[in-house]
Amino acid sequence: MTLQEMGARAKKASRALAQAGALKDKALLEAAKALVAGQQEILEANREDVAAAQENGMSESLLDRLTLTESRIREMAEAVEDIAKEEDPVGKVLSGGVRPNGLKIEKVTVPLGVAGIIFEARPNVTSDAAALCLKAGNAVILRGGKEAFRSNRAVVAVLREAFEKAGLPGDAVQLVEDTSRASAKELMGLTEYLDVLIPRGGAGLIQAVVENAKVPVIETGVGNCHVYVDENADVSMAVEIVFNGKTSRPSVCNAVETLLVHKAIAPQALPAISKRLSEKRVELRAEEKARAFLPDSVPASEEDFKTEFLDYILAVKVVDSLEEAVEHINRYSTGHSECIVTKSLESAEYFTSAVDSAAVYVNASTRFTDGGQFGLGAEIGISTQKLHARGPMGLAELTSCKYVVRGTGQVR
Amino acid sequence: MTLQEMGARAKKASRALAQAGALKDKALLEAAKALVAGQQEILEANREDVAAAQENGMSESLLDRLTLTESRIREMAEAVEDIAKEEDPVGKVLSGGVRPNGLKIEKVTVPLGVAGIIFEARPNVTSDAAALCLKAGNAVILRGGKEAFRSNRAVVAVLREAFEKAGLPGDAVQLVEDTSRASAKELMGLTEYLDVLIPRGGAGLIQAVVENAKVPVIETGVGNCHVYVDENADVSMAVEIVFNGKTSRPSVCNAVETLLVHKAIAPQALPAISKRLSEKRVELRAEEKARAFLPDSVPASEEDFKTEFLDYILAVKVVDSLEEAVEHINRYSTGHSECIVTKSLESAEYFTSAVDSAAVYVNASTRFTDGGQFGLGAEIGISTQKLHARGPMGLAELTSCKYVVRGTGQVR
Repeated sequence: MTLQEMGARAKKASRALAQAGALKDKALLEAAKALVAGQQEILEANREDVAAAQENGMSESLLDRLTLTESRIREMAEAVEDIAKEEDPVGKVLSGGVRPNGLKIEKVTVPLGVAGIIFEARPNVTSDAAALCLKAGNAVILRGGKEAFRSNRAVVAVLREAFEKAGLPGDAVQLVEDTSRASAKELMGLTEYLDVLIPRGGAGLIQAVVENAKVPVIETGVGNCHVYVDENADVSMAVEIVFNGKTSRPSVCNAVETLLVHKAIAPQALPAISKRLSEKRVELRAEEKARAFLPDSVPASEEDFKTEFLDYILAVKVVDSLEEAVEHINRYSTGHSECIVTKSLESAEYFTSAVDSAAVYVNASTRFTDGGQFGLGAEIGISTQKLHARGPMGLAELTSCKYVVRGTGQVR
Repeated sequence: MTLQEMGARAKKASRALAQAGALKDKALLEAAKALVAGQQEILEANREDVAAAQENGMSESLLDRLTLTESRIREMAEAVEDIAKEEDPVGKVLSGGVRPNGLKIEKVTVPLGVAGIIFEARPNVTSDAAALCLKAGNAVILRGGKEAFRSNRAVVAVLREAFEKAGLPGDAVQLVEDTSRASAKELMGLTEYLDVLIPRGGAGLIQAVVENAKVPVIETGVGNCHVYVDENADVSMAVEIVFNGKTSRPSVCNAVETLLVHKAIAPQALPAISKRLSEKRVELRAEEKARAFLPDSVPASEEDFKTEFLDYILAVKVVDSLEEAVEHINRYSTGHSECIVTKSLESAEYFTSAVDSAAVYVNASTRFTDGGQFGLGAEIGISTQKLHARGPMGLAELTSCKYVVRGTGQVR
């Protein structure tokens, strides 16, 4: 099937989904059951993907992301169930009132319509993304990576059957069969059908989307996150916040990549942080002033301050002032999550207002930037742009709005 | 100056504007005074623009849009004053609370940053757009049409001086000197600096932006608006709603372009509507079934149903059902404003939920789609897309948000 045809089918399905109400929850509960019931087919498809990936020399950490197990499928099913239990984001009245001429105006939430999602090797994204889109009344066209294609196809087949069983169109979720770069690029130009494109992946994918997309895009998931240790920080708190941010899960977008330390506290803070990070053998890449306190570090290049390592590597810099720290962050950050460790109210206020990122922390780990941790429910990604959605993007951000105006013949 | 340099200046100015608070209102009140005080320079520049446009054979209606007078400048100044009086959209707490682990999370509004606006021949857009952007804490790069360049430059010079007098950076508003297509295209690719691009103009400009923009865009202002007269409509109400929608100001985006009439009421409704429209010599372009009731009409082509005439022309079609009307609208509309005239609650509910446009009316003129008429304050345009803003786009839509998280050393 061509992408144009898939687009037309998705558009048609989206009209039905927009009116589906509680049927959506029924379909999601069906889908959760069906994932567990259909796990043999899914696991078999996944074994083929994993075998092919091993042959092609995929790294251990990527193989781990790709591999499904019974317990991982159960988790996928539970995530779909949880989404069914969330409140319907469609049909909420955001504001409204009666105008002096008697017009009754309501601003109500509606689905976005058709979403395109380009993602990489994790097959659980397939069920998560499809469930979130369905709950928000959107049809979705998924274009996953070729490494997970057989797994994704098996998951999508199960979901489509479950949605149809509940009385909703199977075309609520479609998988692009062509996993070439050309298909991704074509999806980016599907202006007639796509209301939004959400790329989930590394900096390369995001950049390709920014360069090529003609449809509206929400950039997600690239996090060059910073911790700044202010001159009067609690050093032991700074140690734990940096350690947690860097080492609790280095492969995720809210992990810390750069540490900035005020010069007045560097002599105490840097050796203490370095000692704690050495427990996990974190490589420190430090600029000159910082290296004075970090004998085991290697010299940092400017490139290091631009890099999302997603690994046990941390760039380190000593700064002369809070202002310099904020300038560095606003220059190098991807706008995801940044933290100040400080006891000063003034520093905290300055940092939170001047740092231009989706989430700005005072005395807490950047690892909390997550829909669940923020109490917002499941998320489809962390938006690092400023239009439409910023930070964790959940069901509310998968909707748009519409003005409904009721009159009795008013003219202007 | 290159656009890159303008972008860097705008970014720098935007950092100051984000923290400017009440200074923004002071600057806007200064600007309003300065527009009136500086009207001689502005009028002189405008006379040069008008003279050149006349030489180039500009049409009367475009010349009218281009021409400034003392009273029009007073209106521009009053609009700026009104924007100063609106509530500050920055720093609002949208939601927030305390998580079980003690983290305090607030979602607060912040400026978007730097906006780019591409617009055509109306110089009043210069002061409107600059004032709205400033009030929302954004720096703006304006790229107006070449016909109004001298006028725009004079207005921007007055605004910059006023902003500086109030203690804000003059670079809060910059005008692109190069009015070639190349400069517009370059602005569409200024990803390093622009947080949003808002094209204000006809379908050609919007299409060029969709094709070329690499920065986030909000499409505005193209309105192929419909009125559907349901089988049990009040005919006299339908007559007035169509007449008002088509003739009160045909050149604007919320004017009606297509009339759909249910076959059961066509014999009564079409002659009555046609008679009223003949007062303004409206040309009717009708498909076959409608022509039976409209002897003076001309045949409609499919192209007519796709066209935003912005003129005394109306496309007309008879439909067999409400469902056919909705399908026609969802197929041909630009998603701006649509109206049903009906006495049936069921028809009204179906129409408002199934029509996928920014504003959907029951028994009222589409001409009300306007920030002021909706009670939302001044607008920078009517968004016809679903991401970020839909419908009238005012100060609230010129902001983004940020999560501020305060902790006491929490780690995950």
